[in-house]
Amino acid sequence: MAGGPSTVALATAVSEAGGMGFLASGYGRTGKLREQIHALRSATAAPFGVNLFVPGRDDFDRAAVTGYLRQLAPEAERYGTSLAEPRNDEDDWVDFLGVLTDERPPAASFVFGCPTADEVARLRDRGISVWVTVTDPSEAVIAQQRGADAVIVQGSEAGGHRGGFTDGHLGEDLALLPLLRLTRGVCSLPLIAAGGVSDGAGVAAALSAGAAAAQMGSAFMLADEAATHPAHRARLATPAATGLTRAFSGRRARGIINRFQAEYTPIAPPAYPQIHYATSPLRAAARKVGDAEGFNLWAGQAHSLAQAGPAAEIVRAIAADAHAAASEAARRLSF
Amino acid sequence: MAGGPSTVALATAVSEAGGMGFLASGYGRTGKLREQIHALRSATAAPFGVNLFVPGRDDFDRAAVTGYLRQLAPEAERYGTSLAEPRNDEDDWVDFLGVLTDERPPAASFVFGCPTADEVARLRDRGISVWVTVTDPSEAVIAQQRGADAVIVQGSEAGGHRGGFTDGHLGEDLALLPLLRLTRGVCSLPLIAAGGVSDGAGVAAALSAGAAAAQMGSAFMLADEAATHPAHRARLATPAATGLTRAFSGRRARGIINRFQAEYTPIAPPAYPQIHYATSPLRAAARKVGDAEGFNLWAGQAHSLAQAGPAAEIVRAIAADAHAAASEAARRLSF
Repeated sequence: MAGGPSTVALATAVSEAGGMGFLASGYGRTGKLREQIHALRSATAAPFGVNLFVPGRDDFDRAAVTGYLRQLAPEAERYGTSLAEPRNDEDDWVDFLGVLTDERPPAASFVFGCPTADEVARLRDRGISVWVTVTDPSEAVIAQQRGADAVIVQGSEAGGHRGGFTDGHLGEDLALLPLLRLTRGVCSLPLIAAGGVSDGAGVAAALSAGAAAAQMGSAFMLADEAATHPAHRARLATPAATGLTRAFSGRRARGIINRFQAEYTPIAPPAYPQIHYATSPLRAAARKVGDAEGFNLWAGQAHSLAQAGPAAEIVRAIAADAHAAASEAARRLSF
Repeated sequence: MAGGPSTVALATAVSEAGGMGFLASGYGRTGKLREQIHALRSATAAPFGVNLFVPGRDDFDRAAVTGYLRQLAPEAERYGTSLAEPRNDEDDWVDFLGVLTDERPPAASFVFGCPTADEVARLRDRGISVWVTVTDPSEAVIAQQRGADAVIVQGSEAGGHRGGFTDGHLGEDLALLPLLRLTRGVCSLPLIAAGGVSDGAGVAAALSAGAAAAQMGSAFMLADEAATHPAHRARLATPAATGLTRAFSGRRARGIINRFQAEYTPIAPPAYPQIHYATSPLRAAARKVGDAEGFNLWAGQAHSLAQAGPAAEIVRAIAADAHAAASEAARRLSF
């Protein structure tokens, strides 16, 4: 939930209610992450986690990026802004790891790659539980070999960026249920189910399929504490088709298909985070005028199930519904 | 499971073991369907069902089909055969419905479309439970309006043909979990979950997500009673990426990606069943020489979970595992 909806207040409310709130440090600054951890800790003693983006190699096709940005020129004109440089503007990975080992959050989760075995060991030595996001069973095997405590298995239903180690198909985009079952066969770590789980019955389904827990994003996008843009909220609340796109960030992510996504998905090259930074002024300008056709509307396939209200109420309703759904399934499966 | 794996012996064994076996009449002849119903009834008194393909309109692009078949010429040469005419060679829909109203199977399921309200009423008047396959919540609404008894919600994970009303994206290809939850919101019929459900934990997950039952295909492809080709069996049993393709039949279907599928998926036009009939000699020739690179290897995303052995044992193991998985989930969700 990086890039907008995630807030300290949301993570705090979820953790206080018995869930496990996460701070999203993606696209972030180390200083901001440290502040957020302090703010959260001053608000609750409950466990929480921090999510980090693992930086990739910088080998993208410059000519393809230049060509793509040229095609985006009319968009800059439309919103009265200009594209930014296609740079890689993130603070150092080493500095982020330093924040973790200093601040020692109860858990740290990672997307876009797996920390090295040494890095995992260093985090675990500081009492931090290390969770690695995977989109394929083969990635779960690697995470286990490197000493991770758990893997977050992200099905193809998930909103936002595909969190696996590479940008692109690693064989195929597995949906959550097959991914859980196939990963269970090759990895003995606790599995945390992500993708398309937006209500209590979805959580019950994930746990029935062998997950130890479920990670939910879209389900909290309408929460009072989320900083989701009002134009984004309006789209989330109603049924609308989603699709995968590199149009906004240069890396595949699932969002509600709006004008921008429909128009530029076919031609957007893989170049993350360069395209993310280049389109940043465009997206900011579209948000500013409340034009939901011009910025990324990240959402999972079950986004229209999201409920508005205080996050604590959402957590409690999900927990109660999950228990009821699993109990009913168990009853009906008693022969 | 039309087109090979489905047999009377498999449906009989599944029904006898407490499941509900289905006869696949897809690509079929009315005479053969009648014979199969008689054979099954002479073997078991347990309930069973019959699956039918609803015929579509015949409006395909003849030039596109001709062009595609020209590109398949080297394949015909490779397998020492020739392509057939791109005809529509199926017996009449009306005749198929006549077999149903004569023979009165306990259930009839439909793919590729929804019978009209009159047709549904005629079947139900004869005591036949009418199940309609959908891939989108909007299709479930139509099925309910027309009087269906249940909908089979087929997630994008499913092997074989996408069973919805149209060939192509209806908004998006929803995975099973989101599809179940979103359909529940607009349709009050019993939901039968299909797609990527290949073991007991998968069944428990489907029921936890609100399904009344699960429909399984790939899970029975290695059963002793299935007529799955040996070369197909070998591929099913090991992890291998699947993808959607029109290359074999002219309609989107999920199969293990082999040489033929990889090569022709990008250029195959929508034209079902014309391309199905045109490529039939090719596929038969590849099967005859046991070349798994040359014919359709239909499989769901969780195909490598399929177990070999007698179908009755597979049914019993799935039922026991499903109960255990749902019970464990319910226990862990008790706070």
